[in-house]
Amino acid sequence: MKASQFFISTFKEAPADAEVVSHQLMMRAGLIKRLGAGIYNYMPMGLRVIRKVEAIVREEMNRAGAVEVSMPVVQPAELWQETGRFEKMGDELLRIQDRHGRDFVIQPTSEEVVTDIARQELRSHKQLPKNLYQIQTKFRDERRPRFGLMRGREFIMKDAYSFDKSRDAAQLSYQNMRATYQRIFDRFGLSYRAVRADSGAIGGDLSEEFQVIASTGEDAIVYCPASDYAANLEKAEALAPTGTRPAAALALTQTATPGKSTCPDVAELLGVALSTTVKSLVLATDELDDKGILVKSHVWLLLLRGDHDMNEIKVAKVPGLDAGFRFATQAEIETHFGCKPGYLGPLNLLQPVTLVVDRDVAVMGDWICGANVEGFHMTGVNWGRDLPEPALVADLRNVVAGDLSPDGKGVLAIERGIEVGHVFYLGDKYSKAMNATFLGDNGKPAFFEMGCYGIGITRLPAAAIEQNHDERGIIWPDAIAPFTVVLCPIGMARSEAVQATAGGLYDALIALGVDVILDDRDERLGAMLADWELIGVPHRVVISDRGLKEGTVEYQHRRETEASKVAQDGILDHLKARLGL
Amino acid sequence: MKASQFFISTFKEAPADAEVVSHQLMMRAGLIKRLGAGIYNYMPMGLRVIRKVEAIVREEMNRAGAVEVSMPVVQPAELWQETGRFEKMGDELLRIQDRHGRDFVIQPTSEEVVTDIARQELRSHKQLPKNLYQIQTKFRDERRPRFGLMRGREFIMKDAYSFDKSRDAAQLSYQNMRATYQRIFDRFGLSYRAVRADSGAIGGDLSEEFQVIASTGEDAIVYCPASDYAANLEKAEALAPTGTRPAAALALTQTATPGKSTCPDVAELLGVALSTTVKSLVLATDELDDKGILVKSHVWLLLLRGDHDMNEIKVAKVPGLDAGFRFATQAEIETHFGCKPGYLGPLNLLQPVTLVVDRDVAVMGDWICGANVEGFHMTGVNWGRDLPEPALVADLRNVVAGDLSPDGKGVLAIERGIEVGHVFYLGDKYSKAMNATFLGDNGKPAFFEMGCYGIGITRLPAAAIEQNHDERGIIWPDAIAPFTVVLCPIGMARSEAVQATAGGLYDALIALGVDVILDDRDERLGAMLADWELIGVPHRVVISDRGLKEGTVEYQHRRETEASKVAQDGILDHLKARLGL
Repeated sequence: MKASQFFISTFKEAPADAEVVSHQLMMRAGLIKRLGAGIYNYMPMGLRVIRKVEAIVREEMNRAGAVEVSMPVVQPAELWQETGRFEKMGDELLRIQDRHGRDFVIQPTSEEVVTDIARQELRSHKQLPKNLYQIQTKFRDERRPRFGLMRGREFIMKDAYSFDKSRDAAQLSYQNMRATYQRIFDRFGLSYRAVRADSGAIGGDLSEEFQVIASTGEDAIVYCPASDYAANLEKAEALAPTGTRPAAALALTQTATPGKSTCPDVAELLGVALSTTVKSLVLATDELDDKGILVKSHVWLLLLRGDHDMNEIKVAKVPGLDAGFRFATQAEIETHFGCKPGYLGPLNLLQPVTLVVDRDVAVMGDWICGANVEGFHMTGVNWGRDLPEPALVADLRNVVAGDLSPDGKGVLAIERGIEVGHVFYLGDKYSKAMNATFLGDNGKPAFFEMGCYGIGITRLPAAAIEQNHDERGIIWPDAIAPFTVVLCPIGMARSEAVQATAGGLYDALIALGVDVILDDRDERLGAMLADWELIGVPHRVVISDRGLKEGTVEYQHRRETEASKVAQDGILDHLKARLGL
Repeated sequence: MKASQFFISTFKEAPADAEVVSHQLMMRAGLIKRLGAGIYNYMPMGLRVIRKVEAIVREEMNRAGAVEVSMPVVQPAELWQETGRFEKMGDELLRIQDRHGRDFVIQPTSEEVVTDIARQELRSHKQLPKNLYQIQTKFRDERRPRFGLMRGREFIMKDAYSFDKSRDAAQLSYQNMRATYQRIFDRFGLSYRAVRADSGAIGGDLSEEFQVIASTGEDAIVYCPASDYAANLEKAEALAPTGTRPAAALALTQTATPGKSTCPDVAELLGVALSTTVKSLVLATDELDDKGILVKSHVWLLLLRGDHDMNEIKVAKVPGLDAGFRFATQAEIETHFGCKPGYLGPLNLLQPVTLVVDRDVAVMGDWICGANVEGFHMTGVNWGRDLPEPALVADLRNVVAGDLSPDGKGVLAIERGIEVGHVFYLGDKYSKAMNATFLGDNGKPAFFEMGCYGIGITRLPAAAIEQNHDERGIIWPDAIAPFTVVLCPIGMARSEAVQATAGGLYDALIALGVDVILDDRDERLGAMLADWELIGVPHRVVISDRGLKEGTVEYQHRRETEASKVAQDGILDHLKARLGL
């Protein structure tokens, strides 16, 4: 490609609404152009990256035996009503009506449509396993789209769906996809982790996220440096503490803590470790009758150590809270505790609540909690003496760095990541809802065992940038760079030697199948180099009259801080070596 | 590809709603699967064809210097309001609202968005010319979607938009695209014509359709076998007749024609040629005030020869009718003619009407028309004697086979076609509406001169099938076949020789880069061959034990009626020759 025939558009400044570096750099390098909130044009430079991501994904999906289809962007609501998602999905699902007033949705994923295909087309166990995938435009009407392609509304996703005859077979399909994702992410040239994720109602460990490591990532990734354990924060289990509970040493005392309504403030005031304090979280569950009318509500008190955070996914698995919960209202809190939040605790309640105690709290002695009296906390609280032994103990908290790894092989560390892929065992959730069966080898119909597997095609470049950039711009891995090599001739219009050398090298690289761009815009050197550093092409060759006079050109990798002189007649071999050709 | 790892799904019967052969065959061969009215899943077999069409289009667009972008499927209404198309486009434009109640459309084309990109990005004449294209999902909410991919609601289109600094430069861009389209359609391997089309309000000849020739096509194509003249029926000009008007020979007579209300019936009754009769068409125009309230209506009478049909596009260019017209109401007709339709004519009117006379009628003598009396026609009608010489003469009719070619090089023939491409000079229609300017070389802002260029990516395979099929199924041209070669081993599971030969040939073809499928499903021969004839793979090799014993395999091109024996060790060379390798 020659720059004069391409479309290069760079900007010194990023727009004010670009909060994260990938968004800023994608806008400044002209990869994308905003059309509306969370809706972007993929400009020529950005589309090249997207197409390379697609090509790698497609190649590896095909290699894994998956078959490509394409399901419509606009899908009839009927199928979505079969699974109930048309109603359940909320405002993120963009619903539309056609000219005849019939309901449609714009696909955010395609479980319903692919299950509809399977129930019509896959009639016998002999046709299984089958994995159908598409690379297609999706839409999610995010309430607050932001961060450019990181959380856009319209985006491109690769979504794959496997159909198997048994749970065992489905696990093989899952493992096949997991291995395929590793090949895909290896090829992208990014640092990533496959982390265990919560599989919701389906249970088991068959849900993993592929996270691109980046300090700016939205997700916390928990991993064990001494083993291969990795999970997202939602999923990572906090092991039961190994020690025994210390014996009570202090007397139960109501201690004045005026204006100190948080655990850190109380710990500071009393000069104790935050880990000796206990925070009280008040939840409520509602009991409805057949008509959906509220019969009664029930109040729950969760106790966590002052230095720990509640994990909503784990709380949602506590018996009694697993059908849904909410935070209690101010009125409910006052009725049960006789006190405002900030000084709540499990002692001296006005009305009974159900106590759920985090594993770590259950082994504490001489702890501190709210007194249910404004401006006071209880100190020297002890289980079995000041209140009954906890009946309901569970893992309620996020792990923290230094916790024991669940595999017992070390302690956990935490880093940040960006989710760009997800492999998920679905079981028969969709096949049952849509009565999708095949004829088993026993001659009887059985529900498909399904899995689904996504890769955020347009999010991936953003994640790659979050991981690979510097103050000058983007640093693309070779595999997904818009161009692999850029040739920068200086004063090409005025020097035949420069023109001939640049042209010859360009032709030689094209003949080798290298994705090269020749910057023939005749820009001045500074502007030209700044453009290509911003755009992030990994390999750059500068060709100048001065260099040619001494028989050299300059090569610089985007990660290097200085250019190196290479003999003019050795540059092609040099590039081949750097490109691994 | 091996069939066992692919997705093959064929049907003996087409669904009842499949009216045209391409729709029937695409459904039967499992290329597409209906999801809703005018909405289809592209199944693996069909998607392969679509991807090959896309690849050819992309390659030639790139070769022509066009640059690929991708504009969102969901587009904010604001831009569409700037050009007025948000209101004007009617129900075909699918309008949606997001969760915040903001208006959006699903793109049917992208003139607005690309013009918005241009007005922001192309600031100087130095950046011109520029041609931006995308291959993207489109939606048109057709009132009556039908014929499968021929007139679907969701479809894939390649749409390109050129931006130039002057009308002359825009014409060069247009000619570049026209030549590119010829290369593209040549590569598809289809019989097609580039035909002149009407360019609406913009005028000039810079609008051409690319029509795939097929007897089942919806469009009539007019062409001159003796020259390169070709136009669609709407556009093709009927030349002014060359002869002079014959002198009046008959007396004007009111002749009884009871129950004969059409020209053919009258001609038959009177034993004269249909070409001596004249049909009367009554139109009306409405004059509105500033508030859009009807001030008055005006009635027009069009006269055409009995054997000719009215051309609405041409009528819409007659001065006075060019702002819109409608057919007159029954009441308007009775008020002006004192008679019901079927016996209308230009003589003995109750109230004056504006007469518009087709060129061919203006040179008729002794003609026949309605008498404005039910059951009667006038015979022996003559201009200048029975009514004034016609004041307003125009080309009002569709041409017919045998008419003189407008280029004077022969007579016209008519065949049928399917429009799959369109190149169109837009002028400054969109750039003016959206105030899209660049800085000209004179330092002053000027509106972009634009062109737009579409190819119906998903319609193309349907058109290819309409042109290339027989009673057994589809016959793909090599370039867009889902697979180029199919290997059909008989009894592969039972014969090592068959297995080895098929496997060896498969590997050799893969190594040559041939898109081959090996049918390893172990189907019986009849079913296997029927599948591939239905699917339409152009080159087929059958490998059997019986053949191998005498050292042969069987080759058959899909267009041939019989297979030919080819020496086993010569089949690769044979295939290479047939494939042009």
